[in-house]
Amino acid sequence: MSDLPVALDAMGGDHAPKETVAGALLAAREGVPVVLVGDPERLAAELKAQGGELPIVPAKEVIGMHESATEVRRKRDASINVTVRLVKEGKALAAVSMGHSGATMAAALFILGRVKGIERPAILAELPADTPSGKVHLIDAGANADVRPAHLAAFARMGAAYAEQMSGVENPRVGLLSIGEEASKGNQLVLAAYPLVEKAAENFVGNVEGRDIMSGKADVVVTDGFTGNVVLKLAEGEAKTIFRWIKEALARDLKAKLGALLVKDALKGLAARMDPAEYGAMPLLGVQGAVFIGHGASDRRAVKNAVLRARKLARSDFLHALGA
Amino acid sequence: MSDLPVALDAMGGDHAPKETVAGALLAAREGVPVVLVGDPERLAAELKAQGGELPIVPAKEVIGMHESATEVRRKRDASINVTVRLVKEGKALAAVSMGHSGATMAAALFILGRVKGIERPAILAELPADTPSGKVHLIDAGANADVRPAHLAAFARMGAAYAEQMSGVENPRVGLLSIGEEASKGNQLVLAAYPLVEKAAENFVGNVEGRDIMSGKADVVVTDGFTGNVVLKLAEGEAKTIFRWIKEALARDLKAKLGALLVKDALKGLAARMDPAEYGAMPLLGVQGAVFIGHGASDRRAVKNAVLRARKLARSDFLHALGA
Repeated sequence: MSDLPVALDAMGGDHAPKETVAGALLAAREGVPVVLVGDPERLAAELKAQGGELPIVPAKEVIGMHESATEVRRKRDASINVTVRLVKEGKALAAVSMGHSGATMAAALFILGRVKGIERPAILAELPADTPSGKVHLIDAGANADVRPAHLAAFARMGAAYAEQMSGVENPRVGLLSIGEEASKGNQLVLAAYPLVEKAAENFVGNVEGRDIMSGKADVVVTDGFTGNVVLKLAEGEAKTIFRWIKEALARDLKAKLGALLVKDALKGLAARMDPAEYGAMPLLGVQGAVFIGHGASDRRAVKNAVLRARKLARSDFLHALGA
Repeated sequence: MSDLPVALDAMGGDHAPKETVAGALLAAREGVPVVLVGDPERLAAELKAQGGELPIVPAKEVIGMHESATEVRRKRDASINVTVRLVKEGKALAAVSMGHSGATMAAALFILGRVKGIERPAILAELPADTPSGKVHLIDAGANADVRPAHLAAFARMGAAYAEQMSGVENPRVGLLSIGEEASKGNQLVLAAYPLVEKAAENFVGNVEGRDIMSGKADVVVTDGFTGNVVLKLAEGEAKTIFRWIKEALARDLKAKLGALLVKDALKGLAARMDPAEYGAMPLLGVQGAVFIGHGASDRRAVKNAVLRARKLARSDFLHALGA
């Protein structure tokens, strides 16, 4: 099983197939076999242009970024469907796509199905934070805009299993995102979910607030997909804005410019830590298989990292831990 | 009316009455009359210790941070009630409290009442952003954890009026916080609110995402009080975390330490821009009067800025613009 390749939807993403092919070649050079899925002629040409070789599984159609996710049902030979089917058929270890995220979720749900006991698969995002692992696991980061209290309890279970298996966090601290620390604070959803999450999470630390997400109060932060998506995009957007302002501040006069030369290296590592491409993509948890969904804007490094992490998840005990 | 003082609940906040009295004295030195509300003996002693003079209106009771906001009904002579009553009776221009925010909201609602047509008063928070005014106006930042679609439309009206009157933004761009730019993206609340907000806001720019909050795509961002409170606290918390990481990075070796000396001044201005104390406190909009609610942890600078802004709001055309 370990020698099975990761299947990459090479047609998905704003910079496909150039960056998808380049990312796959980078992964292959690190010893991770990858199979490209998509238009065989375009992919062969791109491989040739980049001077690399990888197996191709042909897929005639593509689901465009402005099409509906329901096209997954109609276009049976769309690259994302073929990619996920390779996992279902045991021909690939995991599936990765930088394309239409709604379509990727739909394909994963229809083709792989849900893990028993998980009604709603959810997206997990990793953000830099002051935790022992250096990151916080946010779930759901956008798969379910409206959820019921019991769904949050299932997200807590999946988030904790992922933090344990993928980030090596022992007995992860699970927090429920709310607007006050007391169990009596929150909206109706969170108030109803509190006792369920408390029961579902082995190490429940209670409610956490927005300010606690990066400060490290929990290893796993549980929320609905609307709030989680806002949190994820704000966290990324704010880091970008602050680093842009820092750049401006360090160019404002000669003294600052001189200092900037000296601190450049120190700040570079920090900027990299805040860069979403470090993680590459986000897993869709709760389906019967390892599926990663990336930013449309992903570059080759993001593609490579996504492939590496998809393989790691597929080879981990995550699904087993969930009782799949 | 302009000579009326701002009423300050001098007993409210973690550092009361020391920091509240000090902040009031700073405001008074800038020509803004302030009346202190609270325990007359403690306040007189604090004024004496700080070598200042200010009028005191006695209030025998206090609503503690761990009491219920409903105590507002029982403790009629609590400092927050007396503070707001001064506004109601025309003896003060505006009310400011760094104490129990739930109690402050309750007192404002019971004593001042709502503006006609505003069912749910809301808290507005100002965050630094790449807009022409240098900030974004987030509403609701925490007053209403659960809202109906029509409430979001009222928040849009209030946020736009505030941005215009207080920040001098002409024809403010109003965005609805969601998880995708298209009108078809969002949770049930946002989907139902979209046409109502579109109608209520003169300059509606559609949905904005988490990444757009600080990037400057809108001058006013409308959301429910749960999401808004998470956004506010994450934005403040992330800035703190990043600046702490920068500090660590700039101390990692001799070269970085040398550079740090040169860039210190340039980064200081930026850190100040991210500091919530610059704004001092947040207005509760939609009640019949100017009421500002501050962080419990407010220092004297935050208190002073809150007093100044409360006076500015009371003297502005904000309530008039809302049709109060």
